[in-house]
Amino acid sequence: MKLIRFGAAGKEQIGVQIDGVNYDVSAFGGDYNESFFENDGLEALEEFVKANNGKLIPVPDTERIGAPFARPSKIVCIGLNYKDHAEETGATIPAEPIIFMKSTTSLVGPYDQVMIPRDSVKTDWEVEFGIVIGKTASYVEEATALDYVAGYVLHNDVSEREYQLERGGTWDKGKGCNTFAPMGPFLSTKDEIKDINDVNIWLKVNGKMYQNGSTKNLIFSVPFIVSYVSQFMTLLPGDVISTGTPAGVGLGFNPPIYLKPGDVIELGADGLGESRQEVIAYSK
Amino acid sequence: MKLIRFGAAGKEQIGVQIDGVNYDVSAFGGDYNESFFENDGLEALEEFVKANNGKLIPVPDTERIGAPFARPSKIVCIGLNYKDHAEETGATIPAEPIIFMKSTTSLVGPYDQVMIPRDSVKTDWEVEFGIVIGKTASYVEEATALDYVAGYVLHNDVSEREYQLERGGTWDKGKGCNTFAPMGPFLSTKDEIKDINDVNIWLKVNGKMYQNGSTKNLIFSVPFIVSYVSQFMTLLPGDVISTGTPAGVGLGFNPPIYLKPGDVIELGADGLGESRQEVIAYSK
Repeated sequence: MKLIRFGAAGKEQIGVQIDGVNYDVSAFGGDYNESFFENDGLEALEEFVKANNGKLIPVPDTERIGAPFARPSKIVCIGLNYKDHAEETGATIPAEPIIFMKSTTSLVGPYDQVMIPRDSVKTDWEVEFGIVIGKTASYVEEATALDYVAGYVLHNDVSEREYQLERGGTWDKGKGCNTFAPMGPFLSTKDEIKDINDVNIWLKVNGKMYQNGSTKNLIFSVPFIVSYVSQFMTLLPGDVISTGTPAGVGLGFNPPIYLKPGDVIELGADGLGESRQEVIAYSK
Repeated sequence: MKLIRFGAAGKEQIGVQIDGVNYDVSAFGGDYNESFFENDGLEALEEFVKANNGKLIPVPDTERIGAPFARPSKIVCIGLNYKDHAEETGATIPAEPIIFMKSTTSLVGPYDQVMIPRDSVKTDWEVEFGIVIGKTASYVEEATALDYVAGYVLHNDVSEREYQLERGGTWDKGKGCNTFAPMGPFLSTKDEIKDINDVNIWLKVNGKMYQNGSTKNLIFSVPFIVSYVSQFMTLLPGDVISTGTPAGVGLGFNPPIYLKPGDVIELGADGLGESRQEVIAYSK
């Protein structure tokens, strides 16, 4: 299944995408949140969709598409998880995963605008393959880690490099600004992705391809990451782990290239769809 | 007012503490969460308490006391915010606040047990003065920052030093383990604290005083911190910012002193009450 949410920000309703068409399933009730995933909502929703085969109402094209799940308890990110990206930033290959966190207030829809923070001059892009947790995970083994996964999502891990690297804090400072986490267009359940170790992910700015990688180059694999993070904190249903970005971010160029108002970011991943964000200047 | 919550973990009911006695106010409805703070719940609760003067039922002493608010959207922490603590850890005084985040799954009640993570050998204590946000705060000025604060809370920012400093990640890795954020016994509204710049905070392990500081030695003040963090992420009602710990953590000793099963931590702060946690070994 492909789960979507539509409607005004903060008031999204739930839907599913079938053969490229978004359908309203708000009659199913609730939201794609912790309670939904925890209580086997995916299975119940699948039954609901089957039972209403041919009777679901398409979502009008004029509707905004939101992030495909409600605000999670946390967005955990893995840093420098592609060898080529670690190299372009001048970092050494990590011996074990780097963990940082994004404020969940940064979450927006896949076609929402990305806002450059006030006085920011180093806002950058990062296409990522995101994991959505399906069951509470604490100290889970790598061998069974995928049992705790609900599905996957496309994520632009927007980053302010000055805040992240030059302001004397941890990376969290440059990762959680408003609009810095466009996710979607949909959450793909596990069965939608043929091979999580061979997913092409790419990102363009103003039509020019900057990132073009594959999860086959992940230093730490999806099951390893889920198991690893669960050693340090309990993952809740609906939580997101973003697995890192391949080479080609703005910081990696000489001189670096950063986002400016009017820029258009497009990104995509096999099985996770495509998203598009226009960049705007800071406004209240 | 002093807000408390009581009952089994995850099923807490709300209460208030008056003259040292905890009273059940569950008839007020709801929980001390984002919606409560956002919709002027503090004012409405004050009216409710006045209207029910003399009629409130005390909470039985046998009830567990939970954290004094529901799981927030985030727990943001300020690192090295006391000069003496920065010195004891061998760090330089930060030029601007260090920000890191604790997974909100680490939140527990003030008298709950603190569990040493599996295979951990460097679990440490940190008494802190915590700020609880009352109104959505984004790019707020220092001069008006306290308008966005609901109150304050005692926090033991339990930390695993190996995870935090030696595992190649950001500090987040050593801060968010289960039971690593005992908060309470109560949330004190702003009016309960005479002078936030002169609050004595202390912590003992097995009866021995290890930390004995005051917020007058904060490098960055409470209003400055609220304003500062709000430049990097939007603070939501019910969110917590923990302001850092004074000297006397286990890491600062030579050789360092770390927690072991059976240890008892007691901590307190003027106007924020006292809490007590027994340390236990990892268990599933």
